Amino acid sequence: MSSRQVQILEAAARMIARRGVRGLRVDELAAEAGVSIGLVYYHFGDRAGLMQRTWEFINERAEQYTKSAIDPAVDPRGHLEEMLLRELQDEPDVVENSTAWGEYRASAVFDPELGRQLREATAGWVRDADDLIRAGQKTGDIDPHVVPADAAERLTALVEGISERWVSGSLPLARARALLRSAIALELGADRRTVQAGSEARSPAARARPHDGVTPQPPRR
Amino acid sequence: MSSRQVQILEAAARMIARRGVRGLRVDELAAEAGVSIGLVYYHFGDRAGLMQRTWEFINERAEQYTKSAIDPAVDPRGHLEEMLLRELQDEPDVVENSTAWGEYRASAVFDPELGRQLREATAGWVRDADDLIRAGQKTGDIDPHVVPADAAERLTALVEGISERWVSGSLPLARARALLRSAIALELGADRRTVQAGSEARSPAARARPHDGVTPQPPRR
Repeated sequence: MSSRQVQILEAAARMIARRGVRGLRVDELAAEAGVSIGLVYYHFGDRAGLMQRTWEFINERAEQYTKSAIDPAVDPRGHLEEMLLRELQDEPDVVENSTAWGEYRASAVFDPELGRQLREATAGWVRDADDLIRAGQKTGDIDPHVVPADAAERLTALVEGISERWVSGSLPLARARALLRSAIALELGADRRTVQAGSEARSPAARARPHDGVTPQPPRR
Repeated sequence: MSSRQVQILEAAARMIARRGVRGLRVDELAAEAGVSIGLVYYHFGDRAGLMQRTWEFINERAEQYTKSAIDPAVDPRGHLEEMLLRELQDEPDVVENSTAWGEYRASAVFDPELGRQLREATAGWVRDADDLIRAGQKTGDIDPHVVPADAAERLTALVEGISERWVSGSLPLARARALLRSAIALELGADRRTVQAGSEARSPAARARPHDGVTPQPPRR
């Protein structure tokens, strides 16, 4: 991909995050990217082609910024936790991507082709989480009673729900992250990497890992 | 409210669910509702006034269809479970409302006034769930270690995430409901109404209530 193409796709992602998928006009995009309208059409064919490539660009970017340094073969649970938590970061790319993703999901209801692309992307994400949960059960870091497909579907759907509340201003980022962290602990069960033998957690609250920055629980009632 | 006003608001909700908030044109709405354009403006002032009233109409309708017959004073946990599960129903009103809600949430990022209304509606919903969790802890039907505000925020955000996957075709309704049911069991802890004394559930999977229609767990790996 040429640097001009990247420049146009970056501008398209920025505009979708600012005005929505349906507000994107090719002439305004060209102005935003600092190129001619003709060049946009030359590289991407029509508006549909442009939207498709922008969607792919957004997904590839998400793969980049959710990739942690933790080796999934050594610590699949840690890798999964980072993959999910990195969807909630105060970085321009992440905010832009999250806004665009919410917008794509809402638009997909009205646009069958967008719906198909979205279902595929969602299924791929759920599958990645599912694979990491299975791997974590093999290393013994995830409760063997957890049903991988169910926990994967719920955790990724929760990330979307929390992310939309964050970008629409209903949830501050720190609280959004703390809520997601506790949800991961609840879904995947006690983490033997941090829970001492003999002190098996029994309650949801007690399952939260003690050292990982979760908002402290208020005093018990 | 006159029957004509209801007729216009029902048509507006239907159109938002079909084409989106941003695709709503007053002349097309008038045609859909079978009234004159003048009557729409007479009752709702301008487009902004119409959108505001449609949003209120959608929220009031949600309050109606999520209201269960279970008395919250007697069985707050049962009432909460029904309140959440009733967001996932194969009923035209619910599908329309869910689609419109997803659309409002995505649009709220681009529209400060819509954002304010949405944050208020979300906060009210979370508060209702929070109150029911506290009440359920008093009756002894909800684990006393659960942090009400956190569980309320997560469960309602999960309903939104699952609901958007359902209306955009990523999740079939039965699976969406089963996933939500298991999440409720996981968040609120073992339900003493159905768990026998001495057999306290320890694992997330074991916590699902055995009789309530949750998809059976696949064989343990």
